[in-house]
Amino acid sequence: MTNTLQPVLNHLAARQPQIEAWLKTFLRIPSVSADPAYAASMDEARRFLCERLRAEGLQQVQLLDGGGEAAVYAEWTGAPGRPTVLIYGHYDVQPADPVALWRTPPFEPTQVGDRLYARGTSDVKGSTTIALEVVFAFLTTLRACPVNIKVFIEGEEETGSPSLRPLIDRYRDLLAADAVLSADGGRASATTPTINTGARGNAALEVKLRTASKDLHSGRYGGGVRNALHEMAALLASLHADDGSVAVDGFHAGAEPPTPRQRQDTAAFPYDEAAFFTDVAGASHGEPGYSPRERITLRPALDVNGMWGGYTGAGVKTIIPCEAQAKLTVRIVEGQDPAQVIHAVLAHLQARCPAGCELEVVALNPGSPAATLHPEHPLVTAAQAVLQVPGGARPIHVRLGASVPITSVFKEMLGIDTLMFGFNLPDEDVHAPNEFFRLSSISQGLKAWTALLDALGRFEPAAFHPR
Amino acid sequence: MTNTLQPVLNHLAARQPQIEAWLKTFLRIPSVSADPAYAASMDEARRFLCERLRAEGLQQVQLLDGGGEAAVYAEWTGAPGRPTVLIYGHYDVQPADPVALWRTPPFEPTQVGDRLYARGTSDVKGSTTIALEVVFAFLTTLRACPVNIKVFIEGEEETGSPSLRPLIDRYRDLLAADAVLSADGGRASATTPTINTGARGNAALEVKLRTASKDLHSGRYGGGVRNALHEMAALLASLHADDGSVAVDGFHAGAEPPTPRQRQDTAAFPYDEAAFFTDVAGASHGEPGYSPRERITLRPALDVNGMWGGYTGAGVKTIIPCEAQAKLTVRIVEGQDPAQVIHAVLAHLQARCPAGCELEVVALNPGSPAATLHPEHPLVTAAQAVLQVPGGARPIHVRLGASVPITSVFKEMLGIDTLMFGFNLPDEDVHAPNEFFRLSSISQGLKAWTALLDALGRFEPAAFHPR
Repeated sequence: MTNTLQPVLNHLAARQPQIEAWLKTFLRIPSVSADPAYAASMDEARRFLCERLRAEGLQQVQLLDGGGEAAVYAEWTGAPGRPTVLIYGHYDVQPADPVALWRTPPFEPTQVGDRLYARGTSDVKGSTTIALEVVFAFLTTLRACPVNIKVFIEGEEETGSPSLRPLIDRYRDLLAADAVLSADGGRASATTPTINTGARGNAALEVKLRTASKDLHSGRYGGGVRNALHEMAALLASLHADDGSVAVDGFHAGAEPPTPRQRQDTAAFPYDEAAFFTDVAGASHGEPGYSPRERITLRPALDVNGMWGGYTGAGVKTIIPCEAQAKLTVRIVEGQDPAQVIHAVLAHLQARCPAGCELEVVALNPGSPAATLHPEHPLVTAAQAVLQVPGGARPIHVRLGASVPITSVFKEMLGIDTLMFGFNLPDEDVHAPNEFFRLSSISQGLKAWTALLDALGRFEPAAFHPR
Repeated sequence: MTNTLQPVLNHLAARQPQIEAWLKTFLRIPSVSADPAYAASMDEARRFLCERLRAEGLQQVQLLDGGGEAAVYAEWTGAPGRPTVLIYGHYDVQPADPVALWRTPPFEPTQVGDRLYARGTSDVKGSTTIALEVVFAFLTTLRACPVNIKVFIEGEEETGSPSLRPLIDRYRDLLAADAVLSADGGRASATTPTINTGARGNAALEVKLRTASKDLHSGRYGGGVRNALHEMAALLASLHADDGSVAVDGFHAGAEPPTPRQRQDTAAFPYDEAAFFTDVAGASHGEPGYSPRERITLRPALDVNGMWGGYTGAGVKTIIPCEAQAKLTVRIVEGQDPAQVIHAVLAHLQARCPAGCELEVVALNPGSPAATLHPEHPLVTAAQAVLQVPGGARPIHVRLGASVPITSVFKEMLGIDTLMFGFNLPDEDVHAPNEFFRLSSISQGLKAWTALLDALGRFEPAAFHPR
């Protein structure tokens, strides 16, 4: 961090009460994207953001329409030759339901000690505010940012970003940048600095199996004919070995084994393994040779998400069901090709489907590969420098077991990598009643984002585009 | 058959047009027990039967109330010292839905060649009419029946006879008899005379398995935790061997192997095995060492009737379901104890349930054992004599793969055996649109029931109660 940043940091420190007040105003707008009843509030949230962006001197402030809820866009391009960073956040929030379980009104931000309770405070108006305030502070104090800035604040994150792809396609030139800094995707730990360097990819399949043209009476056919539920159970059971590892030939093809550094980082991550499972009364179970945390972040997985067939009502119905269905999703890691994984599962099921049964396997989407930030990528180098505590251990690299659609979309459509740099923490009850955000995360976040923009400004734009 | 029967047979032959007319009137009453909208028609059907029974000189004509739809009762007890036979039928019918698929109005009997189309004609107003008309013909022509008669016509057969047990309990003395002749339970073949000498028993279980306190996100837990659907699939798959035989220890305990006679009879039964399966596009599959027909009538079976858990809606939901459920029923044969079979399945599932999973297995009912008429039982001997075609092969003994609740209830509560002697045939679309009954079955049935009552009258009452 350089001395030139001091005015920015001083300004932010002095402004913290106003920053909190602005965030609270933002939180009072119930911008629930899932429910059309909140359409006016969605409008209001967009206006609220545009006004502030204009007031702070950003240019090209506008709404980007992809066919759904518009995104808010603004830019500052006064650093020619420096990298251009797309700052991603979202202004929409989850519904507050079940409202009865909230201890304070979901859209009236309520401060209790270090915690600010409100819907959307952790996910993700708090971290979005941090990112924007840092940009504003640079412009106010230094009249310049260390990097060119493109602000992109989405309104459909909580509904699965249905129009994100058409929107990016339409505004591809406007959104061109060297990297994405996401205010979404928070910290993994309050005590250990972490850098998120990747996420698993995924794919989804649906399986339908038929054994007859109609449900049969077990009094007439019982013991003499195939039962779709028996066959489906056998197929699904065959997907895993008893030890929990995936037993599908070719499923692991290409999967890069965890590097020694990844294993070290995973081991160093402060992770209460017992609590992780007992909190949900779940039983730890999975691929031998890997720790539980390695299994859920560094190894592929296959889960049956739904399975159904036959009679599911009250009492007894003595049928031999003719049809069974199941939904499957996979999580895949670096090196795996989603199409190949889908094919391996398909081939496994087809090979095991007995003669006389009709099997239909459909891929519900083309899948997405795992996302990875190379450990030497400027986003990682910069984040590491920013998060490194003097005299402390280096920040730990973590990977998400989940898939982060926006990072894949940005990579695929704009060819750029994303660093998730939100300051929310895992315990903040996002998507649940009594969501909160820590006020102390605001001051930490303001300092970190200031340093991060500064650090990124020291790279040449080309450095963000290795290979 | 004796010459004394000739007047009865002549009378019946002459009366066939009136018998058909009476049946048609009976069929025009839409006595649908499942739908309260037809309550008035249920009343009308009871009145219709009572009037006729009174008109023909039966005594004690009354409605027996067990708490649901009343049964119609009447008796003729003018043969002291002779056996008493309870004639069972039912006046209720299945709903006509889907009405649009009927080619003729379901409650307007329509004759096409030998076929009489109407809801309830095959199941079971046709055969009930046959039984009653034979009794009436004996009383009209000979002023006496060869046996004492108790007519018991139920109104809840199509809704699972919910009040049959309390009803029998309440009228136990009135219903006391030496044997039951059932108009329900038809012929197995139009060409080969058969005698139904038994039925499989059954039992039902429900299985619930939990692996966590809530559904988990596969991005957070995928690959590291047990999935209720995987475990349920493995449990259900373990119930059968690949060859289709039940793989549950103790499941077959006590099951009497088919006797040489049973195997001969089964082989002699005119059974188009290929058609049996291709008609429903099903694949023949089951316990090695037995023919398909042996599997479905002489061997126990276990079927999963329903299986469900997780997300079953449209699209993708990346959950690891915490709960899975299944419904199971078994068909059991002579010698098996339903409680023991339930226990064997329970023990099998419990032994295979992995640590950390919560398994709940509930027996949905106490189950019922298989029913068997001993080959030397008077009901069998009499039926055999009646059905034996001069110079032809002896009637084949067949067993039902299904379970017949009323026979178990009569056996258990009244201690008497039932001979099913209906004249409907398997292809008559019962419970489906365009149900029909063959008019030629009426004349065949009238002759057979006449001879049967005569034959039964030659036994001492004690002969019906062996052991």
